[in-house]
Amino acid sequence: MSAFDHSVKGVGAVDRVYDGSNLRVGIVHARWNDSVISALVKGAIVKLEAAGVKKENIVVETVPGSYELPYGTKTLIRQQAKNCTPLDVVLPIGVLIKGSTMHFEYIADAVSHGLMKLQFDIDLPVIFGLLTCLTEHQALQRAGLTEDGHNHGEDWGSAAVEMAIKHQNAN
Amino acid sequence: MSAFDHSVKGVGAVDRVYDGSNLRVGIVHARWNDSVISALVKGAIVKLEAAGVKKENIVVETVPGSYELPYGTKTLIRQQAKNCTPLDVVLPIGVLIKGSTMHFEYIADAVSHGLMKLQFDIDLPVIFGLLTCLTEHQALQRAGLTEDGHNHGEDWGSAAVEMAIKHQNAN
Amino acid sequence: MSAFDHSVKGVGAVDRVYDGSNLRVGIVHARWNDSVISALVKGAIVKLEAAGVKKENIVVETVPGSYELPYGTKTLIRQQAKNCTPLDVVLPIGVLIKGSTMHFEYIADAVSHGLMKLQFDIDLPVIFGLLTCLTEHQALQRAGLTEDGHNHGEDWGSAAVEMAIKHQNAN
Amino acid sequence: MSAFDHSVKGVGAVDRVYDGSNLRVGIVHARWNDSVISALVKGAIVKLEAAGVKKENIVVETVPGSYELPYGTKTLIRQQAKNCTPLDVVLPIGVLIKGSTMHFEYIADAVSHGLMKLQFDIDLPVIFGLLTCLTEHQALQRAGLTEDGHNHGEDWGSAAVEMAIKHQNAN
Amino acid sequence: MSAFDHSVKGVGAVDRVYDGSNLRVGIVHARWNDSVISALVKGAIVKLEAAGVKKENIVVETVPGSYELPYGTKTLIRQQAKNCTPLDVVLPIGVLIKGSTMHFEYIADAVSHGLMKLQFDIDLPVIFGLLTCLTEHQALQRAGLTEDGHNHGEDWGSAAVEMAIKHQNAN
Repeated sequence: MSAFDHSVKGVGAVDRVYDGSNLRVGIVHARWNDSVISALVKGAIVKLEAAGVKKENIVVETVPGSYELPYGTKTLIRQQAKNCTPLDVVLPIGVLIKGSTMHFEYIADAVSHGLMKLQFDIDLPVIFGLLTCLTEHQALQRAGLTEDGHNHGEDWGSAAVEMAIKHQNAN
Repeated sequence: MSAFDHSVKGVGAVDRVYDGSNLRVGIVHARWNDSVISALVKGAIVKLEAAGVKKENIVVETVPGSYELPYGTKTLIRQQAKNCTPLDVVLPIGVLIKGSTMHFEYIADAVSHGLMKLQFDIDLPVIFGLLTCLTEHQALQRAGLTEDGHNHGEDWGSAAVEMAIKHQNAN
Repeated sequence: MSAFDHSVKGVGAVDRVYDGSNLRVGIVHARWNDSVISALVKGAIVKLEAAGVKKENIVVETVPGSYELPYGTKTLIRQQAKNCTPLDVVLPIGVLIKGSTMHFEYIADAVSHGLMKLQFDIDLPVIFGLLTCLTEHQALQRAGLTEDGHNHGEDWGSAAVEMAIKHQNAN
Repeated sequence: MSAFDHSVKGVGAVDRVYDGSNLRVGIVHARWNDSVISALVKGAIVKLEAAGVKKENIVVETVPGSYELPYGTKTLIRQQAKNCTPLDVVLPIGVLIKGSTMHFEYIADAVSHGLMKLQFDIDLPVIFGLLTCLTEHQALQRAGLTEDGHNHGEDWGSAAVEMAIKHQNAN
Repeated sequence: MSAFDHSVKGVGAVDRVYDGSNLRVGIVHARWNDSVISALVKGAIVKLEAAGVKKENIVVETVPGSYELPYGTKTLIRQQAKNCTPLDVVLPIGVLIKGSTMHFEYIADAVSHGLMKLQFDIDLPVIFGLLTCLTEHQALQRAGLTEDGHNHGEDWGSAAVEMAIKHQNAN
């Protein structure tokens, strides 16, 4: 990446340090494209823990595929609330790779809108952890599994802590 | 498929064994593209039964075409509840094949969003059993009707049991 | 159409005979593309009557264009309820033909989603009678106005009776 | 336009004469693309008055751009209700012309769905007065500002009266 | 731009002068594409202050990326209401630049619809401050960072004041 890229593109510096030590975070991931998903989940957890989230306060659940992410996220939130260990934020993670049918497009669209809407229905921040790639190589790159790659899971983990704290401050 | 494909793409191993013996499952399928639909429905039932769902607890209903799937799904759920045999999950199945007009695109889009939204309205998991194919051959492949094919109905049947159990555990 | 087409594509056999003799059916049609619309409306009525729906129980109303179909459908349902002659199902009919602007795409998309959503808001089946054609010839074909054509209005009429009966059985 | 065009395309004859003399109509227009918008607004008013709507019962308000149309429409409806001069129908008018970014697509899509949904939220008919043009020439044509043009504002004005009367008859 | 461009395209003259001296305005901006975002935020503030909005009544908050804008906007509104300093309008600002995956399209679509819907849920005007650019150069232009550029943030600032006043007048 050129210097230009850095100034125009890329995550800006975080606005302040967020302390995640009192947060409970849910991760719901699809099981399709397993190696990519695993790397993303690990990346997210690294950043959650770096922000102080305790290991025992990170709950990981799975669903079969990306279409199940919105309802699976709602299910995990409810299940944790029922157990008296409510979540402060959820991070659904899935990887869609363009195939020969239009499956990719319709799933990606329904899931993007479904997760957006879910935040307002459940009144909790939901981080968008869906990769929508045209090639497998793009997925590997965005999971940090290529030399020039960057693990987007890390960004999602940091975003989860920040949005959870901002949500708490408003309530 | 290469070894690479297996590691990056494809359904990951299921997270644990699910016991479907106490579940009631609804299948609502469109009647367009009958031979493909039949194979998908059969594939789903095979996996439902393999997970322990009893034959008498699988209800199959039809609607004319894929646009009717969301409302038809709601109708079946209500009809079963009225009969005091409530469902735990529903699997709508339809096959759309690209034709010369834009019918395919608008139906596929409305149905994908309709089924996604339905889950939250009725508070039950709904599995996405809609094939959105550009050719008839793609549909046959995904119904396991070609030599290199795989019956997606099987994946949907397994997903239905898993999502139903996860939903029950949260309620 | 080849034999193959018949087995893969096309409406499957209806699951059973539906008796429409106690149903009241609303048709709301746009007035753009008048000759095509007229043929579609006639096709629908032929099939409604063939299923036993009485002439006096078929109400036909119009709206200017296809964008008015969702709200016009709601308006007809309410007006009939107010008159103590409630409807059991509604069939909105419109024909959109691709022009040089993007009008076609945005109308088709908003109407497809609007009609889908309407079913859940009013809790009645709404049949999708919108043709989204790239050429006028495609519209004529789908209204049965060409030699190789098939009148889609007939399919919609049959679907309306089936969905209305299924809806009644669930309530 | 050929005779064929007239039979297949184009607004069909209105179903009956509508008397707008007791209606109050709101027009909310964006201010981008001013000359085109002005012509459309004038065309709408000509047809409103031709249908008997009184000059003092036509309220015209503006918003900066097309994205503001849905919420601006709601705001005008509320403001008129607060003043005890409630509206019977609203006609939002905007003109989007494709530029080099994707601004056109995302605004057009959000506004089309926003206006559709608004009708059901406020329970009043909202006419779709949004031109979504790929070129400026297309916009001028549809505002009746070219020799071969037709002012779509006139169609919208007529549609507003019709939909308002139909809405009144149902309530 | 030619004279023609000016007459057809471009913001029309504002309908009247708006006094922002009693308004509280929230700005929520993403931190991706930092230099562009900063210029847009500054442009908005310049116009807010020019309309009389007091410096202490402009609240600026950030979120990691554009997907967080809708929920982040809701969070800021709630947090300010909790502090007894309620906002009259919010301006979310983000910049999306097309990359090699489909990330751009799904984020842009979900955010456009999310912000549109948010206005009705919270009953406050939300200005659409999202640039959806195909190149970085387009983003720089629309932030006024090129010689031929224009800072869209200025238009958004003016729109925020206008929409807030119109909203107040209706309540």
